[in-house]
Parts: sequence; C-alpha cells; structure tokens
Amino acid sequence: MNTPAFDTAEEYEDKVTGWWRTGVSRIRPGEILLRGYPVEQLIGQLSFADTIWLMLRGELPTAAQRRLLEAALVAAVDHGPQAPSIAAARMAATCGLGLNNAVATGVNLLGDVHGGAGQQCMQVLADLEQAASQGADLDAAAERLVADYRADRRHVPGFGHRFHPRDPRRDPLLALVEEAVTTGEVPGRALRAGTALERALSQGRSRPVPMNIDGATAIIYRELGFPPELGRGLFVLSRSVGILSHAWEEKSQNTRIKGPLPRPLLPAYDGPAPRDLGPRHA
Amino acid sequence: MNTPAFDTAEEYEDKVTGWWRTGVSRIRPGEILLRGYPVEQLIGQLSFADTIWLMLRGELPTAAQRRLLEAALVAAVDHGPQAPSIAAARMAATCGLGLNNAVATGVNLLGDVHGGAGQQCMQVLADLEQAASQGADLDAAAERLVADYRADRRHVPGFGHRFHPRDPRRDPLLALVEEAVTTGEVPGRALRAGTALERALSQGRSRPVPMNIDGATAIIYRELGFPPELGRGLFVLSRSVGILSHAWEEKSQNTRIKGPLPRPLLPAYDGPAPRDLGPRHA
Amino acid sequence: MNTPAFDTAEEYEDKVTGWWRTGVSRIRPGEILLRGYPVEQLIGQLSFADTIWLMLRGELPTAAQRRLLEAALVAAVDHGPQAPSIAAARMAATCGLGLNNAVATGVNLLGDVHGGAGQQCMQVLADLEQAASQGADLDAAAERLVADYRADRRHVPGFGHRFHPRDPRRDPLLALVEEAVTTGEVPGRALRAGTALERALSQGRSRPVPMNIDGATAIIYRELGFPPELGRGLFVLSRSVGILSHAWEEKSQNTRIKGPLPRPLLPAYDGPAPRDLGPRHA
Amino acid sequence: MNTPAFDTAEEYEDKVTGWWRTGVSRIRPGEILLRGYPVEQLIGQLSFADTIWLMLRGELPTAAQRRLLEAALVAAVDHGPQAPSIAAARMAATCGLGLNNAVATGVNLLGDVHGGAGQQCMQVLADLEQAASQGADLDAAAERLVADYRADRRHVPGFGHRFHPRDPRRDPLLALVEEAVTTGEVPGRALRAGTALERALSQGRSRPVPMNIDGATAIIYRELGFPPELGRGLFVLSRSVGILSHAWEEKSQNTRIKGPLPRPLLPAYDGPAPRDLGPRHA
Repeated sequence: MNTPAFDTAEEYEDKVTGWWRTGVSRIRPGEILLRGYPVEQLIGQLSFADTIWLMLRGELPTAAQRRLLEAALVAAVDHGPQAPSIAAARMAATCGLGLNNAVATGVNLLGDVHGGAGQQCMQVLADLEQAASQGADLDAAAERLVADYRADRRHVPGFGHRFHPRDPRRDPLLALVEEAVTTGEVPGRALRAGTALERALSQGRSRPVPMNIDGATAIIYRELGFPPELGRGLFVLSRSVGILSHAWEEKSQNTRIKGPLPRPLLPAYDGPAPRDLGPRHA
Repeated sequence: MNTPAFDTAEEYEDKVTGWWRTGVSRIRPGEILLRGYPVEQLIGQLSFADTIWLMLRGELPTAAQRRLLEAALVAAVDHGPQAPSIAAARMAATCGLGLNNAVATGVNLLGDVHGGAGQQCMQVLADLEQAASQGADLDAAAERLVADYRADRRHVPGFGHRFHPRDPRRDPLLALVEEAVTTGEVPGRALRAGTALERALSQGRSRPVPMNIDGATAIIYRELGFPPELGRGLFVLSRSVGILSHAWEEKSQNTRIKGPLPRPLLPAYDGPAPRDLGPRHA
Repeated sequence: MNTPAFDTAEEYEDKVTGWWRTGVSRIRPGEILLRGYPVEQLIGQLSFADTIWLMLRGELPTAAQRRLLEAALVAAVDHGPQAPSIAAARMAATCGLGLNNAVATGVNLLGDVHGGAGQQCMQVLADLEQAASQGADLDAAAERLVADYRADRRHVPGFGHRFHPRDPRRDPLLALVEEAVTTGEVPGRALRAGTALERALSQGRSRPVPMNIDGATAIIYRELGFPPELGRGLFVLSRSVGILSHAWEEKSQNTRIKGPLPRPLLPAYDGPAPRDLGPRHA
Repeated sequence: MNTPAFDTAEEYEDKVTGWWRTGVSRIRPGEILLRGYPVEQLIGQLSFADTIWLMLRGELPTAAQRRLLEAALVAAVDHGPQAPSIAAARMAATCGLGLNNAVATGVNLLGDVHGGAGQQCMQVLADLEQAASQGADLDAAAERLVADYRADRRHVPGFGHRFHPRDPRRDPLLALVEEAVTTGEVPGRALRAGTALERALSQGRSRPVPMNIDGATAIIYRELGFPPELGRGLFVLSRSVGILSHAWEEKSQNTRIKGPLPRPLLPAYDGPAPRDLGPRHA
C-alpha cells in the first residue's frame, strides 16, 4: 500500500532500528547491559543513587560525588500537601487510578514555575561562573546580575522563600559542599558563585534573602557537572518519593473524589447572575 | 453567596485543614519535618534509599532492609526503549515538553499490564504464605495455584519472560534474599512461597518458567513487609530513573516530533477505501 | 548488531508497518482520509459532534443520533472546581505548564471512581437489557439487581448524587431519549431498563434515588449503540471542555503554585511529634 | 496546631472559598449554571461546538462564528499514528490503563513543538495585524518578517509541512473564512495577514511554502477573537477525538505492552561495549 522506500532488508533494519537507538542500555535475550555493565553485576553492589548517576552520566560516581548526590536527593523529597504536585497526586489517588497514574499526575506539575527554579538557578550560576573564569570580579558580577533582575522586577531563582524566612535545608547542604571543596573533591566554582549571589541579594536589606532548596541543590548539581536541565530531572526523581508517599497515604484514608474543599464549603462564584437562554437557540 | 456552614473560625479551621491532613510531613515557617525528623538531620546522614523507606514506612530501615531495598530498586531501572513507558517518554521529549512532563508520560504507562505484575505477584505470594501459615503444604498449594491459572489460561504474574529465556536479574536478587534469610534478617516466607511456585511452574515442562524481575522483587518487597500496592509504587520510583535517562538522551539527539516509525515508512492502513461524502451533509 | 530477523525488504515492511496499522485514518503525501473520507470533504460539512461519531463509529450519524450525542456531550462539560479533575487542572495551570499539560492532568483523573460511573452504568443496563430480551420481567430483574447491590453495600452506578437531591440534567436528557423512542429513532431498550432501575431504587424509600448525569448519559450512549468503555471516552471528550475552561480561567488569574489552601492555612499534621535522628546513622 | 489566622467564620469563608473562585460555573444543590445559564436550558438546544464557545468565551456564538469554529475543530481531529501524541496514546492503551489515562497521555504530548505551532502562528498574525492597523504595508511587513525568520534559520510557524507538499486542509478552511469575510461576519484582518505571509514565503522560490493546518486554523481562531494560548486549547479539544479513536482501536486489537517496534526487531545500541564492574564497588 505504501511506496516501498528501501531495497534490502539491511536498509530497513538500519533505518528502523536506527530511528530507535540508545546508548543507555542494551537488551538482548538473556542480557541487560546498563551503560555497558551487565545488570547482574550492579545488583547488590551499587546503591540506588550510584545507579541514578550511572544511568544519567554513563560512568560511576566517586564516593564524594555520591555523597553530595544523595544529600541533594534526600533534601527535596517533600514539602507537604500545600504543594500543587502533592495535592494533585493525592486527589488523583481518590479517583480510582493506579499509584502510577497518581505519581504521574504529581510529576507532571513540576513545570517551569513549580519545579524549574533549580534548573533556572543552575543557568544563572553557569553565567556567573563563566564571568569569573574570564577574570571578572565575582561579587561585582553578582551585584550587576541582582540589579538587572530587580530592574525587571524578577526574582533571582534559587533565593528567598515565600514560606520559610530561612530554608532549613540550606545550611546542611552548603556544609557538605564546603567540605567537598576543602578536600578538593569538587571544584568550588558554583559554591563561590552562589554565595556571591546570596551576599549581593542581601546587601542593603534589613531582611536577607537566603538561598533556598533550589539554590543549594543547584550548587551541588553544578559542582557535580550536571547540565541545568538535568537539575529538574533530579528534582523529579527526588520529589517522586514525596508524591508517592502522599498518594499512598491518601489511598489509605479511603476518601473518594477528593476536591480542594470539604463538601459543605463551595467555591466562590463571580460569573454572571442566573439567566435564561431565551427562545430556542438551535 | 454560599450558605454559611460553620459558626466559628475554629470550626472552619478544623473542617478545612482536617480535609487536608497528613502524617508524612509537617511544614511550618522554618521547619520541615519528615515523619517527625527535622530534614536538616537527614541531609548527609541518610541515603536516598533510606529516605524512600522512611517516607513510605515512617521509620528507618535496618542495614539489611536497606540493602535489599537498594538491590530491588537498582534491578528494575531500565529495560530499554522497546518498553512503551520508555518509548512514550522519549517521544514526549521531542514534543517541546519539560523533562517533568516526559517522565510523567512514561510513569503514567506503568499500569496493570506494564507495571502491575509485581503487585499482582505480591498478592499471589501473600495467598500462598497465608496457606502455609495455616499448615498447608507449600508445594501442594503452589501446584494447585498453577493448575488454577492454567485452567483459566492465565499467566502466573512474576514468572516467565516474553524476551529472556532466563531473566538475568533473578539470580543475584534471590541470592541476596537467601543471604538475608540465612542470617535471620528477613523471615523467608515469601522466598519459600516464590520458589515453590517456580518449582510448580516447571514441573513436567521441558522448558522451565523461571521467576522474572517482577517475581524476584515481589519476594523482596514481601520479605520487607510492603503491601502489594506499594510494590508498584517502588517499581515506579525505580523505572523513573530509566525513563529520565532515556528522555534526556532523546532530548540530546534533538529529534522533533518523533513517532514510532522513521518518516519514509508509513503505518499500514486497513480502513475503508477512499470514498466521497456525497451531497452536502449538514 | 542485532540478529537479522527477515530476509527481504518486503518482509520488513509487512512486519514493521503491520505493527502500526489502523483503520481510523490514512495519511499520505497530500492525502488525509478519515474513515475513508477525504478530510477536505468533511470541513464545513460536518459538525464537530458528527466528526466525533464518524471517528469512533466509522460511519456518519443520522440526525436523531447526532442530536442525542450532542445533548449528552453538552450535559457533562463541567461540574465546578470541587471536582478533582477540574481542581488539579487549575493547579497545573499555575505551575508553568502548557494548557495541553493542564488538560492532560485533569483528564488523567477521570478514572474508575471519578469518571467511570457512566461506563459501569452502561454495563448494568446491558445486563438488564439482556435479561429483558430473554423474556425476564424488567421490574423484577431491576429489583433483584438493586437488592444484590444493597446486600453488598454498593451503590448502583448512575443513580443518586452526593450533592444534588435531583440532578438537573436528568429530566432534559430523558425527555430527548423519550422523544427519539417515540419516533422510533432509537430502540428504547436502555431507557426502559434505566427507568425500571430508578423505580426499583425508590421503592419503599421516603427519598427517591433519581438517575444522575452518569445514568442519563449511559442510557443515551446505550441507545446509540456505544460499547460501555466508550461511555468513559465520550465523557472524557465532554469534560475536557470544562477542564480547559477552568485551566484557562486560572491562568488568567495569574496565581503561581496554587495549592488546595490559601497560604495562611496549613494542612493538619497527624504524624509523629518532632524527634531526633540520634547518633550518626549512615 | 497551626497559628489561627482569622477571627471569624466569615473571614475563613472569604479566604478559603475566595482561593477557589470561578466565573465559569456555579454548582449548588439542584443547580448547575454554566456561564450563568441553567444547564437544563442548554441540553438539546446547544450544539457541542456552541457549548465549547460558551464555556471559553462566556457568551453564545453567532451562526457564522459557530460554523468557523466547527470547521477548525473538524479539520484537526487526526493525523494518523505517526504523530507521537497518537502513538503514545495507543501504547498507553496496551498497558492496562483506562481510556482516560490513554487520552491524557496523548494530550500531554501536544507541547510547544507538537501542538504549539497554531498558538505561535496566532502570535505572528497578531503582530502583522497590529503593524497593518498602524498603517504599515502588509506585504512589506510580511516580507521583513520572513527575512528575519530566515536570518535566524527558523521556520515561520503555520507554513510548510514536512509531509504534505500542500496540506489538503488549507483550501477548504480558507474558503470558509473568505466567505465569512465577504459577508462581513468576521473582520478579515487575520486572513489578510496570513495570505500576505504566504505570498512572502513563496517569493522567489520554485516550491511554494503553503499554509498548513496550524496556519489556517490560526487565521480562523484570530478572526473569531480567541487569544493565542486558546488556539492550543482548541487544538487539544480537536485532537482528543483522534487520540480517543486510536486508543480505542488499539484496545480492540488486544495488543499487550506495545512498544515502537515489533518484537523481533531491537533498537540499535550505540553505548559502551559490555564491561565488568570490577572489584566490589560498594
């Protein structure tokens, strides 16, 4: 029925399987290679965080790299059911869906605004790091950047929190990075850029604007060499744990068709007053 | 506009916040408790797998429990782009979506058929374990169960693989469970039930029907005390790693609007031959 | 790299394109056939509802069929932001996602519990219709069915409403079906089964349990010959309109990261009291 | 447990229900208002397309507006299983999900690249229309715009098709707009902008770059006064019909866990050669 597009079976094979090609894994009868390693060698040997690193980076992490990755993944697992990702997953769990669908619902919401600040902060850090590597004074560059954001009435991603005066995850995460910088296990460029930014943001303010979870994990992921977009990817893996935990808790509470408000409360309505369609329209 | 439903602010507070209640986390200004622990104590102390356990179970795992959980999570991260979950996430990555949306797309597909075998196997194991605890002979019970499934022309979930003659993940996973049973760190009931089932399935067959990844992880999750539905939840966390890795790889290949077949191949059409609508229909 | 599986290009073509085969549409350069009709003949001639029918059924509807389909699609477009599907889509719209992702989030929640009652009611009607076609007394069969559900403490799907004493969509939908039955345009079997069920449910009750939107549309979709599962599919198309309208309204309100409760209210916490992790765990 | 934030029940009511406020619908016991109209007046009177318009715009369409909206919705329902949205929904249908989840999977993929061209084209048209309204020569403005896009090596959204030399949906859609412009039912500004763009794109080319479905529907939606973002929203409603039809067809074919390639074909692997993990890593 379709115009034949190839002359030989080999041409087809090249075309069709080349359209689906991967360096992540090779699956053949009796064989599962993950980044070249037979899976049976990884089971029992690698931690889950090691495996996340291997799958995303292609090689194994050092002990220091794994330690920082674990810390960042642990820090971001949950921020309660006020977060729309968690709330939506809990609602999904009351609608007769599988846990997979409930988790997907929550993960889907980790978009530019809700889950993208870490990724955006990594980009900001990358720009500052580059300026510094070209000889610019880091503090001066950070001050210019802050001034530019303020002129545009934009928030610098990764700093300040609408809820916490000081994000409790900032200090322990930065302490781990500082330790790794001291021992030379990570370069320290993103840490210097991030703290310069934090100083610049607090200058001349009575209330400082400290780094939040997105800023602190952005520093870690930059120090570990991840591209910005994977910053969001790693946040997704981390927050999936909280999403699953909440969806499961909600399922265990046996609510059905849960909306945002309990039943006796109704959403406010600000549309037109009741009206008639008038004479037959159709 | 709405009929007032409560008389006091306290009644409202009870009703509204009680509608959103959780034991997973408590978030207040400056405070993030995960299952009662301040998050700043967990960062740098817990592994990612420890934290998964804590969030789902409410307490910390023992070293042996963590080791088994890590192994099960590592084993299931990926099975290549032939899996619809991975393929759909890769397609999503070419449509101008964020990585969060691509991962959600893949996770959403881990339904009863694609991601539910582990959960179903846990239920089968639970039934056998219960029979055994009530004094039944395990091998006889397993044989009856296999006979029942075969009479209904159904596959026992967790056994056999449409691709691998012997799933390479089976042996290393079972070896870890056996070790933990030997040292008394897990009870061994699910292991005994699962291996009885494997024996029953192979009886009188020239080709055995060995346990697959779903069966082997089902044994681990049962030995660790997870309810069946969380078996699927844990698979979701594990497979999310492969989904993310593939979605990211696809993004890096810069394909746009990738369908299942490369462009010169067209899907076969078996609908009606071209036809005319005829005189104006509407 | 892979073992060649075919000898000729034709074998490949058969295998690969046969894996992706469809009777819904044929797309070739310069040609788009929908169920055999060139799309350019449909544009301007068919209504959107006609096209929904054509795509799902393969042929065009009669005027009476179209009229009932339109009515059922119109009736179910929205039930306000208390519905989790709408609420979740509104939340999604505040997270930096495209409208497509927001609509997908809402649609995903129309599962067995939230969107499946119509489908389940169609199954119940099908069973009653079959009993009647085999000579059973419809009222007696309906009474037995109601008794069985009550014995299992289950609700008969499609009847009663947790919010409306009488669903305002019931009467106008049933009036349209009755009209079509009178003129012989639909057979009337599902209408008779549904009203028998309604009578049986109200027997001996001071408060009747009238048909709701799911029941009334189930009658229409059965009269029109749709299989039960497509009942859910049609509900998805209908409710997508409300989901889109609400997601769009929410975007226009410019809220960011909207959770279920406004910021000064916090979810209730019923987990463990704050506690210490104790000596270094890892 | 939480700091009380309000003093009276009325304050709570304002705060909580004001957080969830809408002008789309009002749902109270026994009452469903859609944009102010009681739903029972709409059933049997409005077409599905009328109701889409009412829900998104707040008022009813004229006959001419409805006719154009129907045409645009009909034109975009399907473009075959090569489209990733359709392919992913079909895969989802083989994984043990409900039709709602399969449709959500497809809709989720209609992102900036796959579903956003119409929205982007509406923005381009809006810019040209504004230039024209300020007295600029439309053809000159269109030529500058095309030159700018070509200088950036970008495609003008809504023109050209990677598959069809001439999109068969262009002519019938434009014919309907021209008719409505002639009778004065729509202003014609977007039509003039779009055709100016088409002329500019074809200038000095042996092969013209005709308007595609995204361009033609963008003209219609602009003539009807929809904001660009709703262009994507309307495409989502339209394509949902094709997604549902394909997901349903796939379910009826009873495939399980369908990936992109049939089983004997394997994706190409371009990762590292098999390798050993070496001495115990953990």
